[in-house]
Amino acid sequence: MMGKSIKELNIGDEASMSRTVTEADVILFGGVSGDFNPAHFDEEYARKTLFKGRIAHGMIAASYATAVLAMKLPGPGSIYLGQEMKFLAPVRFGDTVIAKVEVLEKNEGKNRVILRTYCTNQDGKLILDGKATILPPIK
Amino acid sequence: MMGKSIKELNIGDEASMSRTVTEADVILFGGVSGDFNPAHFDEEYARKTLFKGRIAHGMIAASYATAVLAMKLPGPGSIYLGQEMKFLAPVRFGDTVIAKVEVLEKNEGKNRVILRTYCTNQDGKLILDGKATILPPIK
Amino acid sequence: MMGKSIKELNIGDEASMSRTVTEADVILFGGVSGDFNPAHFDEEYARKTLFKGRIAHGMIAASYATAVLAMKLPGPGSIYLGQEMKFLAPVRFGDTVIAKVEVLEKNEGKNRVILRTYCTNQDGKLILDGKATILPPIK
Amino acid sequence: MMGKSIKELNIGDEASMSRTVTEADVILFGGVSGDFNPAHFDEEYARKTLFKGRIAHGMIAASYATAVLAMKLPGPGSIYLGQEMKFLAPVRFGDTVIAKVEVLEKNEGKNRVILRTYCTNQDGKLILDGKATILPPIK
Repeated sequence: MMGKSIKELNIGDEASMSRTVTEADVILFGGVSGDFNPAHFDEEYARKTLFKGRIAHGMIAASYATAVLAMKLPGPGSIYLGQEMKFLAPVRFGDTVIAKVEVLEKNEGKNRVILRTYCTNQDGKLILDGKATILPPIK
Repeated sequence: MMGKSIKELNIGDEASMSRTVTEADVILFGGVSGDFNPAHFDEEYARKTLFKGRIAHGMIAASYATAVLAMKLPGPGSIYLGQEMKFLAPVRFGDTVIAKVEVLEKNEGKNRVILRTYCTNQDGKLILDGKATILPPIK
Repeated sequence: MMGKSIKELNIGDEASMSRTVTEADVILFGGVSGDFNPAHFDEEYARKTLFKGRIAHGMIAASYATAVLAMKLPGPGSIYLGQEMKFLAPVRFGDTVIAKVEVLEKNEGKNRVILRTYCTNQDGKLILDGKATILPPIK
Repeated sequence: MMGKSIKELNIGDEASMSRTVTEADVILFGGVSGDFNPAHFDEEYARKTLFKGRIAHGMIAASYATAVLAMKLPGPGSIYLGQEMKFLAPVRFGDTVIAKVEVLEKNEGKNRVILRTYCTNQDGKLILDGKATILPPIK
């Protein structure tokens, strides 16, 4: 139950998870966040938008990337300092999102790593891209 | 069901929501995200960490800020382009988080606004701070 | 999987179920209903109200009474025509609610029954009282 | 975070919200209420009923109306005294429900308002109609 220390992390290391985004995930995320924007909850409204139907909250895909950070790379014991991300394309109900993280930089003196965090969908389209700043666990 | 257009937004406009973060929220967010880090789910493990007990996912507080963007300012019809945030302090089960957004910059030519997104707890401590980039709805 | 027909129902017949209302139920009901009133979700706010803390949605207790109608008396196959109810006392997290229904009137010609639907808490205090109008299943 | 006082409410004032009812909402409401009637949960059974397929719990649409009361009109600080409602038509999975409330009567002496609470679907069909009795917040 302990992730990788900065010494165990190498530039270019990668980890990922993938998951199909369902209507149920959107309902549950709405409940947790309080975000009931009609773009996610009202099909009649959503059909008239640019996206022609309901889409998932962007933060759901973002949360998959944070799950990879927390669970796999660096993993448990990490402290999450910051995140930046761009939302590049919508996620529709039924899309399968692959969330990946990759070590970009490490600063051993400050015990700090920067990881790219990004998500693609089942068609390989980039839907989210960003960077996380993490303090990996100290062993 | 339409938020504020860029002309209706003024530098300094603010909106907020507040909510007590519960164990149930953490369970549900774990299910949606797949982030089952023991810092959130394993009390025995968490007691031995720096935080001396389970804490909520940082993304839960972040999602409250996005809910304010989506529901109130600018509100429905907005397109969420990007977010950056720093996690400054842990959120414990039972803490009440106040999420606020404030219009910092607007670029009418590009129909783009930058909002500060930040969260404090019941003691006024800043737990998350960042910026969102949004395309407000066009009327 | 078929409830009682009007011939099988007698004035005075009763059924009940009981359940402890948890914080998690309130979170989930908030998600389903979209009702995030701070009386249910914000402990800091709720402490300053008449009730001195968060309370459950009144509709949660009401839904227990409808569950008894749907599952037990008259049970599956019933058509729910209407409900009236008064909310008499708050339900706090951790309270155990006993929901009861009792046949008050039956009109065989119209195949229609009126049932009292009421809820008490673990102290025997009446928290909800009302009447349901039901078409029981036809066999 | 304070709704409208009786002086701020006028006969004819309206508020609404809309939402697509999903299978996930029905599952979650089943879990919260304990109402697992096969009309909502068993497609094989439901196909043989009058409605030719699973329908949502009537109380889900009712809960949208209560969410409008709690969140918008009168809003936070209201005390919910009572509700009566008739269920007029089934709600199917995927239907979009518009819940509306409208101030019908106000009694300033007793600080009490009566609001019509009703829901229509995407075809404009009235699915639920009723009245709520509320004590609006005192300022």
